[in-house]
Amino acid sequence: MGILSGMRVVESSAFVAVPLAGMTLAQMGADVIRFDLPTGGMDAGRWPVAPNGQSLFWAGMNKGKRSVALDVKTPRGREIAQEIICAPGDDAGLFITNLATQGWTDHATLAARRPDLVSVSLRGDRHGRPAVDYTVNPAVGFPMATGPEGSEEPVAHALPAWDAIAGGLVVSGLLAAERHRLRHGSGQAVDLTLKDVAAAMLGHLGIIGEHAVTGTTRGRAGNSLYGAYGQDFPCADGRRVMVIGLTARQWQNLLKVTGLSEPMDALANALGADFRDEGARWHARHAITAVLAPWFKARRVADFAADLDRAGVTWSEFRTFSQAIEDDPDLSPDNPIFSEVTQPGIGTYLSPGTPFGFSGMARDPATPAPLLGQHTEAVLADVARLPEGDIARLFDAGIVAQPSRAALRAAS
Amino acid sequence: MGILSGMRVVESSAFVAVPLAGMTLAQMGADVIRFDLPTGGMDAGRWPVAPNGQSLFWAGMNKGKRSVALDVKTPRGREIAQEIICAPGDDAGLFITNLATQGWTDHATLAARRPDLVSVSLRGDRHGRPAVDYTVNPAVGFPMATGPEGSEEPVAHALPAWDAIAGGLVVSGLLAAERHRLRHGSGQAVDLTLKDVAAAMLGHLGIIGEHAVTGTTRGRAGNSLYGAYGQDFPCADGRRVMVIGLTARQWQNLLKVTGLSEPMDALANALGADFRDEGARWHARHAITAVLAPWFKARRVADFAADLDRAGVTWSEFRTFSQAIEDDPDLSPDNPIFSEVTQPGIGTYLSPGTPFGFSGMARDPATPAPLLGQHTEAVLADVARLPEGDIARLFDAGIVAQPSRAALRAAS
Repeated sequence: MGILSGMRVVESSAFVAVPLAGMTLAQMGADVIRFDLPTGGMDAGRWPVAPNGQSLFWAGMNKGKRSVALDVKTPRGREIAQEIICAPGDDAGLFITNLATQGWTDHATLAARRPDLVSVSLRGDRHGRPAVDYTVNPAVGFPMATGPEGSEEPVAHALPAWDAIAGGLVVSGLLAAERHRLRHGSGQAVDLTLKDVAAAMLGHLGIIGEHAVTGTTRGRAGNSLYGAYGQDFPCADGRRVMVIGLTARQWQNLLKVTGLSEPMDALANALGADFRDEGARWHARHAITAVLAPWFKARRVADFAADLDRAGVTWSEFRTFSQAIEDDPDLSPDNPIFSEVTQPGIGTYLSPGTPFGFSGMARDPATPAPLLGQHTEAVLADVARLPEGDIARLFDAGIVAQPSRAALRAAS
Repeated sequence: MGILSGMRVVESSAFVAVPLAGMTLAQMGADVIRFDLPTGGMDAGRWPVAPNGQSLFWAGMNKGKRSVALDVKTPRGREIAQEIICAPGDDAGLFITNLATQGWTDHATLAARRPDLVSVSLRGDRHGRPAVDYTVNPAVGFPMATGPEGSEEPVAHALPAWDAIAGGLVVSGLLAAERHRLRHGSGQAVDLTLKDVAAAMLGHLGIIGEHAVTGTTRGRAGNSLYGAYGQDFPCADGRRVMVIGLTARQWQNLLKVTGLSEPMDALANALGADFRDEGARWHARHAITAVLAPWFKARRVADFAADLDRAGVTWSEFRTFSQAIEDDPDLSPDNPIFSEVTQPGIGTYLSPGTPFGFSGMARDPATPAPLLGQHTEAVLADVARLPEGDIARLFDAGIVAQPSRAALRAAS
């Protein structure tokens, strides 16, 4: 059932942020209807792909949604999309998009059909320019503060972090505006840009303030934890671990478990520093690492893992994606958020449901992404309330589409 | 006023995810009350810091909240915290925390006082082990997929991305559970772990599926856009730009504006590839870059910026944080999400309000973070409803604290 059971959200989207927002809502129980061209959206082939060319990305980002294939390049197709978005229902009239630049899904246009519509539109930047995670990130400065100390090469992150952060805000903005509608009856156009999400974060993290009051900002610091202590260490077995001394307790636990309190005190004395102060640890990080590194270099991860856990040290191992997927019980059916799901046209593999646990309801296992157009007929009938004959004519005219009966049978 | 005006949320937190969640709610108009020890929370001194030692990070993460300084190491202090969390009010009884491991703010304990409490608790991992962004990220594999192709060195991201993503989910989970309470009257314990947020994302992005159906996962790809085309290019003025050819249109626009369609066709022919296919662009990315690089190397950014914008190319420049703050109008008061805010004890600098625009309400300018304990007396009186005499005794006993009258005057 899910905590958002009964809510209906329509999505016109591509790529990460808005699809992820829709999926987050779907995995909390909302009926999320995504519409795409019968040939698929811009992200229909987004990598990674299966050997048969099917997009594993698309399958990952659209789990639990309903899919409508609709030729919105035709006037009737657009009208049907608008009917679906604006269909009646107290818990409907909710729309999320990152494609509103196309005009016909503008809030004003839609609100003429349903005045209490809540729409959330994510755009590139406030000037109407396109932007993606890969361009927003360099623009605000993170790649120039990433990678080895002393390097001059920018390093872009591999995680589409701004997209994922913006996707979370799309969910929050939608739920906040719907909450307001419940109380006051009024709809709302919620606007957000990917660039503003990143720009605001520079402020939230104190980076803009730092520039203002110190005239400078942080530079590259390799894998060091910024502003306190945390470092990666190669071990005797060729593995590498990340070890954290951010809080006073983490720092003390680390010294205790390695038995290096004494040389660390000597180091602090030599430097005239007090390592109880996180800034002092940051300034002395290279010297601190020199004291700690031989301890890790002389040991295999298996030699110290249990001790570190017992001592409450905050640490982890560096893994490749494949190592993590193969070795980590948190990435296995042992973790209740995961289950083996059969994705039609691709295969059966481990898929995550919502990471939330809600005490008042059972955890729903993950469900697959739909086939493109899998729910076209159902949504035209149940949501747009079109008569059977009209629906047949739309199929005949190629304005709407759905997979073959055989594919639908195989998928359900 | 804000879209969440009237809602009251209590926060017991430190560092990024939950403070960011509380601030997101506060900047949408909720009354967010954060309580800390009179000596400050674990993040009271988090870097970056001002020359006088005041935390710019703390100021950034707690904008617009009310602060209560409360000695929760004493039984009476804990009881008062529980009274504040569970105080009456239809739009109250909402609690977010990443410190619930301490026990006395467990949902069950609090729900004994207020059965319809909605709490969201973010923990490290599902086993009860501590975890932070700096450890979760290596554990799931991103640092081993970041940085120059061919390198063996892991590169950690500089943005606390998992924290920010988890913070967004804390907001979404809270609003979803409060929506459910409005309809059904029942409270809810919402649980989430930082590790699960990252683990789920591996699935959402298709990385787990890729491993399952191909036996492999992506490796390091420098600053290349994964799975299609996008690359960084050094320019004649020593600057560097990121240029995207993810969608068919972006790719065509890029070829058109550089006038390199012909050599690109020749390259495609030579490779027997069709660059309309995004996977073909990805496989041929090095050769494609070799065709494009001389064009950028021969030009200054100023020579082509307007042309790229006019042609609808998705691109940006690489900047340091300082360059971005100094040069980008989106990081200036020209952007309506920003305003100059005086942060007591630190100074006046540019601060972001919410990145959302809600059509039904005016945009509130950013407000500063509170001084530690700035609202202790007010919250004890208005929320916990303690009589004046009791409040005076709590101050005398040192169980609660607030800044000096002079500091409060200066701050307001």
